[in-house]
Amino acid sequence: MKINGQKYRTIWLAEDGWSVEIIDQTKLPHAFVTKRLSTVEDAAHAILTMQVRGAPLIGATAAYGVALAMRADPSDAALQKAIEFLARQRPTAVNLRWALEEMRKTLAPLAPGQRVAAAYQRAGENCDEDVETCRLIGVHGLDLIKAIAADKPAGEPVNILTHCNAGWIACVDWGTATSPIYQAHDLGISVHVWVDETRPRNQGASLTAFELGAHGVPHTIIVDNAGGHLMQHGHVDLCIVGTDRVTANGDVANKIGTYLKALAAHDNGVPFYVALPYTTIDWDLDDGMKIPIEERSASEVLAMTGRLEDGSVVTVDIAAPGSRAANPAFDVTPARLVTAFITERGVIAANAQALRELYNVAA
Amino acid sequence: MKINGQKYRTIWLAEDGWSVEIIDQTKLPHAFVTKRLSTVEDAAHAILTMQVRGAPLIGATAAYGVALAMRADPSDAALQKAIEFLARQRPTAVNLRWALEEMRKTLAPLAPGQRVAAAYQRAGENCDEDVETCRLIGVHGLDLIKAIAADKPAGEPVNILTHCNAGWIACVDWGTATSPIYQAHDLGISVHVWVDETRPRNQGASLTAFELGAHGVPHTIIVDNAGGHLMQHGHVDLCIVGTDRVTANGDVANKIGTYLKALAAHDNGVPFYVALPYTTIDWDLDDGMKIPIEERSASEVLAMTGRLEDGSVVTVDIAAPGSRAANPAFDVTPARLVTAFITERGVIAANAQALRELYNVAA
Repeated sequence: MKINGQKYRTIWLAEDGWSVEIIDQTKLPHAFVTKRLSTVEDAAHAILTMQVRGAPLIGATAAYGVALAMRADPSDAALQKAIEFLARQRPTAVNLRWALEEMRKTLAPLAPGQRVAAAYQRAGENCDEDVETCRLIGVHGLDLIKAIAADKPAGEPVNILTHCNAGWIACVDWGTATSPIYQAHDLGISVHVWVDETRPRNQGASLTAFELGAHGVPHTIIVDNAGGHLMQHGHVDLCIVGTDRVTANGDVANKIGTYLKALAAHDNGVPFYVALPYTTIDWDLDDGMKIPIEERSASEVLAMTGRLEDGSVVTVDIAAPGSRAANPAFDVTPARLVTAFITERGVIAANAQALRELYNVAA
Repeated sequence: MKINGQKYRTIWLAEDGWSVEIIDQTKLPHAFVTKRLSTVEDAAHAILTMQVRGAPLIGATAAYGVALAMRADPSDAALQKAIEFLARQRPTAVNLRWALEEMRKTLAPLAPGQRVAAAYQRAGENCDEDVETCRLIGVHGLDLIKAIAADKPAGEPVNILTHCNAGWIACVDWGTATSPIYQAHDLGISVHVWVDETRPRNQGASLTAFELGAHGVPHTIIVDNAGGHLMQHGHVDLCIVGTDRVTANGDVANKIGTYLKALAAHDNGVPFYVALPYTTIDWDLDDGMKIPIEERSASEVLAMTGRLEDGSVVTVDIAAPGSRAANPAFDVTPARLVTAFITERGVIAANAQALRELYNVAA
């Protein structure tokens, strides 16, 4: 997508043809800074410190990390070492392990002298595949937005609420939840996005608002408390969120607070869509309540980072001194509250049968 | 209630017997500072700058403001001027106007020489009446907590979720939503409070957490997104919130986000109680959706105030630069989602008939 008129992906080959550039997302939204990765250590550091974030982008960075490692030493030992080293940076990231396994399958059978070129090619394909998956999610979601726009008086935007950041900067391009929005906007359909702040890490107010603003999509930040009120008063036409994991029965794990928005959407007859690529489906679980929920640091709740007037970025303690905090990172929205899934293969009902049929998976 | 072992009200006569002391709530939770009011101008300033906040406390401060004015000049003209001056500080505060009208009714018929003593007496009675109303809300709400505690294994606390600050520091003592909690705690019943942060003004993380902590009540701050997840997993036994206005049919206007918690409570079979004194009922409205909702400054969403490591208090910009924000201050929870009202006269169903019967109001 665009940042102030210039087209970007979140990761790309530098002009030298071998080093890799990323957007340093730890600096967002306070500053837009790109960073060059020249070694496998650079790639690992970018993953560990969340300069890159979002499952697809982590996988893409790891794949290029292997390519950088092969450039330094294309031996079997170096390949094995690079894969293990990169996998260690975010041990729970499924997509990271998947991308590294793809690189191993591609490179291990080759002679060392062939590995550098093959690694760069496979890493590039990995990126292109993610872009195409996200683009197709957008193509299918676009129809939903078009249908609502057709029923609106001329000039009235389609109002879309989203939670957290399932945007292009979590992927390589387009995003998942944002892909239908960007495609509608780029076609000249009037859209307006209600951006949930998404406490405690504020990915909405910082990342989603940043990327929508940079691409020129009209949007308004709201606190996480406000969405229900907006739905009660008819100010939301549809919700689109991403997901970290969908169980085989259609339950949706996503950023904490998603469940509350799904309840409000259901109570007010607002369609609630979840955008996902097939890699997000966990066929081995048939009940979202069985998904273990990560408990993160209390400091994310008790402190907040922002800009002072002089532009410097500081972290301040915002709560009553001495109070403790709990910080569950995700919640589970039951399938019954999900209007439909928007996938790269089409829009389907949120249930086990529809998922299995779409992906030809046996019951 | 207690602050670090010492009993406080939010407003009290100083040792000199005529000046008035308050807790400067603009300094909370970062510092505990009391402030002496010696003139009607001091009282007006405290109301205007929100050094005192919460409908009952604003009314109590205004009443003492009239007493301070009478001490300087007990004439008819000075009485009229003081009442008008104080009323102007928060034009929409119903309780402020009510308290000033009470003072006028008490003082206007008296000779100027009798007014100072009568003003202090009426202002003190105003405080005592509020304390008694809040105490009775607690007495009735306590039974609900006791009933849940009786069904719990020994040692397991009753988990109560609250939103915003309907605590004693918004009143003179006890609070509304917090009164049952303090009474249970003081009786030795094990309670634990989930404190919603309550973005954007963070009254939960700053004020409710402060007062619970100062009194010694176990509590945990959570982001507003987390309550639904906790209810899904059985970690919330009941919700108790306050309210700014209850319509004659039982709809509840309260801090933005209350509706989302009521939806989650309903979806999980968690009782959802609203604590209120009779002064909160608006008999002239029969539909909560007709309540006008205040839209507050975007800066409350886009910036955050907190403590730096050196203890200084600063405000930082937290959102993507250039993004705008919307900031509705309240939402309306339909009566159908409210398990019951906890009032100073007892616990009743959230509907028009029960409200009318309790207060002997004609249909």
